[in-house]
Amino acid sequence: MDITLQQAEKAIAASKKKADELDLKMNIAIVDGGANLKAFVRQDGAWLGSIDIAVKKAKTARYFDMNTGEIGKLSQPGGALYNIEHSNDGLISFPGGIPIENKEGYIIGAIGVSGSTVDNDHTVAQAGVEALK
Amino acid sequence: MDITLQQAEKAIAASKKKADELDLKMNIAIVDGGANLKAFVRQDGAWLGSIDIAVKKAKTARYFDMNTGEIGKLSQPGGALYNIEHSNDGLISFPGGIPIENKEGYIIGAIGVSGSTVDNDHTVAQAGVEALK
Amino acid sequence: MDITLQQAEKAIAASKKKADELDLKMNIAIVDGGANLKAFVRQDGAWLGSIDIAVKKAKTARYFDMNTGEIGKLSQPGGALYNIEHSNDGLISFPGGIPIENKEGYIIGAIGVSGSTVDNDHTVAQAGVEALK
Amino acid sequence: MDITLQQAEKAIAASKKKADELDLKMNIAIVDGGANLKAFVRQDGAWLGSIDIAVKKAKTARYFDMNTGEIGKLSQPGGALYNIEHSNDGLISFPGGIPIENKEGYIIGAIGVSGSTVDNDHTVAQAGVEALK
Repeated sequence: MDITLQQAEKAIAASKKKADELDLKMNIAIVDGGANLKAFVRQDGAWLGSIDIAVKKAKTARYFDMNTGEIGKLSQPGGALYNIEHSNDGLISFPGGIPIENKEGYIIGAIGVSGSTVDNDHTVAQAGVEALK
Repeated sequence: MDITLQQAEKAIAASKKKADELDLKMNIAIVDGGANLKAFVRQDGAWLGSIDIAVKKAKTARYFDMNTGEIGKLSQPGGALYNIEHSNDGLISFPGGIPIENKEGYIIGAIGVSGSTVDNDHTVAQAGVEALK
Repeated sequence: MDITLQQAEKAIAASKKKADELDLKMNIAIVDGGANLKAFVRQDGAWLGSIDIAVKKAKTARYFDMNTGEIGKLSQPGGALYNIEHSNDGLISFPGGIPIENKEGYIIGAIGVSGSTVDNDHTVAQAGVEALK
Repeated sequence: MDITLQQAEKAIAASKKKADELDLKMNIAIVDGGANLKAFVRQDGAWLGSIDIAVKKAKTARYFDMNTGEIGKLSQPGGALYNIEHSNDGLISFPGGIPIENKEGYIIGAIGVSGSTVDNDHTVAQAGVEALK
């Protein structure tokens, strides 16, 4: 079961609204259950380097069905998953990527946001996730 | 001068409408003046392999400021640009990518569409371009 | 809806049986609905270069929901999809890749076979597809 | 001397059995003596991001004929092999990859497992190795 475009657009709209409220400029990506890109927007003035990061955050969150920041806790020097980022053509393991579940708790995709601090990225991604609950 | 997200969303909406009218399922990508991804949508059921092709068509159109199909005419065996597709991490040189001009005739980005025949792809891309005129 | 491992193993077993009957040595790959690798085997003595080709054939078949050979007919010099192989990190557009449908006609994955002539590759792939009907 | 497909399938069957006993969902990859993919399975529901990690663990174990976790001890900041993961299109240097020896002690391939904690990954990989002793 994959996220629909309607759901993806609803999540992106909520994330954009949150970004505007916080006066941020974000890249926002949605992937489906197969980790394939479903929708993407870059707000005017958002960092160019965050295009790829937003997409990689969304993919990473779906690849391991967890928030990207959780992976980063384990991939530090000395950690269990040190340098896992070298897999899958490059993971992003800091906050801003979150899996998206449907109402039955089945993971149907993921969202990735990049353009500000990792805390802000996570907050804006979370707004997108909440819109589908 | 770059395409704004509002303009990109307007073009995508017009392309989606045209795709729906023709009963097609499309991947639609917009890049800005720097050939960097600005917005993307994949309609439900659209080919997975067309994600990359739509993005590459949009980039190719902006890389050379011409319709992608024009490049394909020159990249055939014996042609002046034979195998130009090997550059830029892969070009797509068949129809479906079109530069986007603003009202003053300045190129502010490009659109790429993939998911059907190349004629349909071009038609749906053209609808997006027309919406900004 | 994705192909299960049990289904994938059933398809691979049927393809292996067909390959043995024809005295061929094959690489056989199965991808799921998201075009992600599900299962793979390389028969003893099969070409090393066909590992990647089998995987790419399976992905290509799912990317466009058609037999890989169909794409090859359109990607020739002068054809509508000339040089489409440059997309998606490399497509394989000659026969040997076939989408896999479930009994309701929904595409749940694809199979790719490489190791002999393209006719033999297709025949062995088809045996895998038939096993799930 | 390379691992045969029959041996690879025997190792995978043992690893799958161990994963089932531990209620885990794993990606399991086998490479031959040339570090080329021989067989692969993804159990239903296993992480998508672990496809590549399982394959890279198997390759890494054969590239250096040691358990992947041993390399990780040396690749930490300040260590002798710091950032060796940048080589070979990406190594994985945490546990879950183990070389496979035949009864004469000759290395004929390697196994890589990914899908749970690194301890579980190693345990499931070890079950595959034991099956060939």
